[in-house]
Amino acid sequence: MPNANNTPNPYHFPLLLGIFILAFFPGLIGPIFNSPFTLLSYTCSLLPWATPSAPLQPQTSTTATMSWTQKAFTLPAKSRGSYLITDHVMEKVPEIKDYKVGILQLFVQHTSCALSLNENYDEDVRADMSDALDRIAPEDRKGNLYRHADEGLDDMPAHIKSALIGASVSVPITNGRLATGTWQGIWFLEFRASKHQRKVVATIQGEKA
Amino acid sequence: MPNANNTPNPYHFPLLLGIFILAFFPGLIGPIFNSPFTLLSYTCSLLPWATPSAPLQPQTSTTATMSWTQKAFTLPAKSRGSYLITDHVMEKVPEIKDYKVGILQLFVQHTSCALSLNENYDEDVRADMSDALDRIAPEDRKGNLYRHADEGLDDMPAHIKSALIGASVSVPITNGRLATGTWQGIWFLEFRASKHQRKVVATIQGEKA
Amino acid sequence: MPNANNTPNPYHFPLLLGIFILAFFPGLIGPIFNSPFTLLSYTCSLLPWATPSAPLQPQTSTTATMSWTQKAFTLPAKSRGSYLITDHVMEKVPEIKDYKVGILQLFVQHTSCALSLNENYDEDVRADMSDALDRIAPEDRKGNLYRHADEGLDDMPAHIKSALIGASVSVPITNGRLATGTWQGIWFLEFRASKHQRKVVATIQGEKA
Repeated sequence: MPNANNTPNPYHFPLLLGIFILAFFPGLIGPIFNSPFTLLSYTCSLLPWATPSAPLQPQTSTTATMSWTQKAFTLPAKSRGSYLITDHVMEKVPEIKDYKVGILQLFVQHTSCALSLNENYDEDVRADMSDALDRIAPEDRKGNLYRHADEGLDDMPAHIKSALIGASVSVPITNGRLATGTWQGIWFLEFRASKHQRKVVATIQGEKA
Repeated sequence: MPNANNTPNPYHFPLLLGIFILAFFPGLIGPIFNSPFTLLSYTCSLLPWATPSAPLQPQTSTTATMSWTQKAFTLPAKSRGSYLITDHVMEKVPEIKDYKVGILQLFVQHTSCALSLNENYDEDVRADMSDALDRIAPEDRKGNLYRHADEGLDDMPAHIKSALIGASVSVPITNGRLATGTWQGIWFLEFRASKHQRKVVATIQGEKA
Repeated sequence: MPNANNTPNPYHFPLLLGIFILAFFPGLIGPIFNSPFTLLSYTCSLLPWATPSAPLQPQTSTTATMSWTQKAFTLPAKSRGSYLITDHVMEKVPEIKDYKVGILQLFVQHTSCALSLNENYDEDVRADMSDALDRIAPEDRKGNLYRHADEGLDDMPAHIKSALIGASVSVPITNGRLATGTWQGIWFLEFRASKHQRKVVATIQGEKA
């Protein structure tokens, strides 16, 4: 029984080993002490709400929170005219708010309408725009302008206007908002006379806040 | 029994050998130490279900498989006209198929031709387009329109058309396909009368499938 | 029984070996300590060195150095005309040099001027361009063209030209340089007669070198 103290206690060795290691590497003490918190923050970095929020000012950023959002939506059917759709876009693509920095691309999947950026205040500008485009790409009333006439007088002019204005707009995003100027809005231009359903693909590429 | 300590423990030699080797080649320690993790990540990258598979419907995704592809190619030399190049692009940039979500940008490195999106079916539309642009930016047959005349009657109109139509198109990619509408194709518009070699830079940014 | 202490404890050797190794290679302690976290982060592919490093030549690259740069700058105020701003852009956005592959988007926050890509050599081209656009979207000298006339004869034509040319350009970046063609430059087109301060938002998305 007095000898019992000489039989090695099976728990002594690992504990002595621990003391030994810590004696040699005191730098370990901090990390070991912090380990539960470190583990917690690691776990947290996997949860969306835990991502370290990117600083507001410096506009260069890397990797971690790069993200894509893509969705399609249909515009309200409209007859010939120019329409301000900024609010409609914000409603259909609320994900814009999630991006600290990025670019929103809107792409209309049709060839007789267009998207543009222009004046967002006076609706006369929109009416004047549609009329001006009619003069630039007129209807073929005398039948001497276009070969392609099967789909109506307004169809070939619509294709020309679509090529001139463009099927897509790309708008920078800054801190969850479109970085448009004070007087700038997103326009949808319908070039066909009658109402058409138009589908838009919205693609955001950026860094989430 | 007291001699037992003197009989060589059969495990001592390989272990001492190991220490020896590591002492001579400390650079081995990192790789050896990392081997389980490296192996894990290798294995993961081979297993389809190990890559965080982006959900098919909700089109928001993060980090892991962000990727850029960029390459240049030359279009078949063409004289004045509008040409459908969707198939040519798909052949030259098969990487499109690898992207679950993204944007393809095609950028022509010239200022007297253009890229656009327009009707992909009736070739009359393409002929009409070229003619319509000739009316919008006419040649200076009377010599009273343009200062810049050194490079031929067709050169200044070509620059104007290029500014109007644009040197690039950006097309969303969805599940390995261009997210173009049913009647939408990629057009190359040559504005010079004679054939020219035109170089296109294709840049894809997106998330691989 | 007293001899029991002399029989080698089968756990002593590996543990002493561990101390030995750690004493020789203290650099191991950090990795060993971090191993649970490292394993976790490997599993989640958050660490750059877990993704296969992008090859230098084939222009497809992944994750690691994805980066966004965004900044705003003001262009020198100019009256009506077309201006080559490539050098100004390079000076205001030197970050272009840091990108191995990417896209620079320049976006003007106004609706009566535009950005374009066109000929960078002969300034006659720029003068001709402004004149040609005046013919395409003329001022309303007889008062029968536009409703919107409050802001001067040059305002509505400016909006039309802005829609035709576009508020933004997107230029691919290759190895720290804009991948523009030999004769291609970035143009700023002012459509108002008098000088205006114009703000540009520059957004680069890409992979740093």
